[in-house]
Amino acid sequence: MRPVAFEPVTPALIRELKEIVGDDAVVVREDIPEEYSHDEMAPVRGWPEVAVFPGNTDEVSRIMALAHGAGVPVTTRGAGTGLMGGATAVEGGILLVTTRMDRVLEVDEANMVARVQPGVVLLTFAEEMEERGFLYAPDPGEKSATIGGNVMTNAGGMRAIKYGVTRDHVRGMEVVLSDGHVLRLGGKVAKNASGYNLMHLMIGSEGTLGVVTEITVRLLPLPEVLTTLLVPFQSPTDAVGMVPILGKAGIIPQALEFFRDDVLDSSTDYLGRPFPHHGAPAYLMMRLEASSRQEMERFIDRAGRLCLEGGADDVLIADTAERQATLWDARGAFLEALGWTDIDECDVVVPRDAMAEMMLYSDEVSREVGLTFSSFGHAGDGNMHINILRGDLPEEEWIARRDRAMELLYARCASLGGMVSGEHGIGYSKRGYLREHTDPMELELMRRVKESFDPRGILNPGKIIPGMEAEGN
Amino acid sequence: MRPVAFEPVTPALIRELKEIVGDDAVVVREDIPEEYSHDEMAPVRGWPEVAVFPGNTDEVSRIMALAHGAGVPVTTRGAGTGLMGGATAVEGGILLVTTRMDRVLEVDEANMVARVQPGVVLLTFAEEMEERGFLYAPDPGEKSATIGGNVMTNAGGMRAIKYGVTRDHVRGMEVVLSDGHVLRLGGKVAKNASGYNLMHLMIGSEGTLGVVTEITVRLLPLPEVLTTLLVPFQSPTDAVGMVPILGKAGIIPQALEFFRDDVLDSSTDYLGRPFPHHGAPAYLMMRLEASSRQEMERFIDRAGRLCLEGGADDVLIADTAERQATLWDARGAFLEALGWTDIDECDVVVPRDAMAEMMLYSDEVSREVGLTFSSFGHAGDGNMHINILRGDLPEEEWIARRDRAMELLYARCASLGGMVSGEHGIGYSKRGYLREHTDPMELELMRRVKESFDPRGILNPGKIIPGMEAEGN
Repeated sequence: MRPVAFEPVTPALIRELKEIVGDDAVVVREDIPEEYSHDEMAPVRGWPEVAVFPGNTDEVSRIMALAHGAGVPVTTRGAGTGLMGGATAVEGGILLVTTRMDRVLEVDEANMVARVQPGVVLLTFAEEMEERGFLYAPDPGEKSATIGGNVMTNAGGMRAIKYGVTRDHVRGMEVVLSDGHVLRLGGKVAKNASGYNLMHLMIGSEGTLGVVTEITVRLLPLPEVLTTLLVPFQSPTDAVGMVPILGKAGIIPQALEFFRDDVLDSSTDYLGRPFPHHGAPAYLMMRLEASSRQEMERFIDRAGRLCLEGGADDVLIADTAERQATLWDARGAFLEALGWTDIDECDVVVPRDAMAEMMLYSDEVSREVGLTFSSFGHAGDGNMHINILRGDLPEEEWIARRDRAMELLYARCASLGGMVSGEHGIGYSKRGYLREHTDPMELELMRRVKESFDPRGILNPGKIIPGMEAEGN
Repeated sequence: MRPVAFEPVTPALIRELKEIVGDDAVVVREDIPEEYSHDEMAPVRGWPEVAVFPGNTDEVSRIMALAHGAGVPVTTRGAGTGLMGGATAVEGGILLVTTRMDRVLEVDEANMVARVQPGVVLLTFAEEMEERGFLYAPDPGEKSATIGGNVMTNAGGMRAIKYGVTRDHVRGMEVVLSDGHVLRLGGKVAKNASGYNLMHLMIGSEGTLGVVTEITVRLLPLPEVLTTLLVPFQSPTDAVGMVPILGKAGIIPQALEFFRDDVLDSSTDYLGRPFPHHGAPAYLMMRLEASSRQEMERFIDRAGRLCLEGGADDVLIADTAERQATLWDARGAFLEALGWTDIDECDVVVPRDAMAEMMLYSDEVSREVGLTFSSFGHAGDGNMHINILRGDLPEEEWIARRDRAMELLYARCASLGGMVSGEHGIGYSKRGYLREHTDPMELELMRRVKESFDPRGILNPGKIIPGMEAEGN
């Protein structure tokens, strides 16, 4: 494959961009705020030569046609809440920011779908749908992310155990291809067997195959009764082992989270709010949903009994909205409580019965490399977030130890039948690990797919797979 | 793009095939039973030059490597229950039949997944899982299909409204590429954001991108209480209009079918069994699931009340297994009752609120072209099966009228925001309609994807998109 030589952004190109989106929606290099040079975690920095803020599909299409003609790379960015450097313009060029495309275009109650622009913020959208009596089921931890970013990373989140990931809630999309062509995939239809499903290929492609400009998502009825159980365990293995026991008994919680006391303490300290339990080596926190109070009582009774039989110390029931909020706010602040700098994250997903082993192994790795880890995970789906903290190590030492830790963790994950990323994607940071743990033939097919969609290699270059470079790069 | 010239199957190649799979598992042209020259409905016939019945992945891999080297086309076939000619060897060559690969390799209760070979029959598998206390949720009408065929057409079925389609239940697969390379995609993991999702691209690709040799599917807890409601309506529009009303009220049935009295009568005549209601212009039949008798009573009460408010004549409750079987057996025999010859089917899917309009329009088309239609559909997801009956028309007249009917139906479907196929796929029969109603750029991307996976074009040639031929063919 040929290497890509990108062209610089010229003053003429900037003038043309201004003609497309207006002067106010173009910011050039020296005026671009620092935050647009990175995402929320990945250490990689990339200054775009120009940032554009299109307001509609037609503008995105014209920007892409222009960039395609000029051979200038385009990196799409939503709220920039990613953790893997996926939205960072590592090759410079144009940063296409979708935050102005933030309208809910339609709520179609008869078909129980909504059409949204990519820049719609997850929290705003979910709340608006709830007010209308609908559940938008995907529930990634980072509520200030955009739906476009969620779709393009196939974001997971708390409710994946019951409702699946973002992919499972996308019905249709409009996407602008690398040459500006506007393609509509899927629609308001609930099923589709009409040729290769390019929409599912686009989902999770992190902006390397196209720029999503509209998304049709499905809406569900709101559950009527919600209750949260907090279940402390002495043994992490016992805690994680509850998941199949509950499932077999017909209890699929809406959310089922696992954490340990260190993460819990750091979060409750950070929030400065009381939490109803402390000091257990392992916790499960589960949100149950039911269609009535009576049904909920049966679920609580059954789940509680199974947990106690399975080694739980206790079962704490939070049945008011306020008490539930106390629990979930603490869970929501896990990552924030760690502080945003000098962390790297291993977002592996393993078969859920291997989660306890992966967790105990991560303790070993932490000791071996001499770094503190802060780990939590979605017990219901085997997805762990192992956060590796720098502490006060000097740069070189930090990188060496972190890289060694990552190597060990990903190797064990692979041997357990797991995957490099459960929900945070590959972006820039995890390309090497994807390459190391993926069949070279699969990578080759990904490269061919990339070239099929983006023959000039201008869309988000350097992400997921080394774009058009020869193998080994 | 270059046209493909396939090589014939030589005596030497047959000898090599016999070395791979054994003499008994190779049948040559004159000895191949007639049923292997077609599927269950499509009028297209194609005699393979040789049929092979591999027993494991390694054999499939060696067959593909051989075919790839020789430039011989390979068409994969499961139980041959397709309706669109997808499993018919229209270019001759090798017919690779998966029916000997029919083992359930593993039922992993802790992870609630099962690993199966592609030739496992849906009914057998679903029953085996039920005995173990699990629900395999996909429920296509044709229970003698193989799981491999279900995955490769992304089969839908009755329970799609609640549980989604086959795609939503596949966690991993092993697939043999056109050159014999064995690729493993996904696994036992519940989520995955590790690069382009080639597994989702493979699902629904109808054997044109690879030969699936193993599938990991997820299992769910069995619902505890099931009840079926049969609801007659005077107005088809009222019947179909119930779907969002029920959904908004928190009632998502496990299955929600729509049919009219002509189809019902033909089915009950065919089965020769009594049915509790006749003569209404439209019926909804819904299976509700609940976690207890009390919850079910509330659901029945609520759903019944909403239906009566929405124009239903009556609400008939079938709460014993036997009574429910009477209803669902009649539904299951709709297609069979039409007889298997001289039918063509339009398997459109539209936004579900457009289903009534599509149905009334199909009545118009039936009158206009002078052919009898027999239609039913999955009201919950907007997928209709409009069966066009030949009656006693001479061949030429039948084809002319049928083609005219199809043209009109697909055109209206497109204008309603629908898609060419909801669940039966494109195969051979519907290629022209896919081409007509798909953005040429999307077709071009599909061609590039096809070429990325199968550069020699030997996998199931002539299906979905005209493989490697120049555009216009």
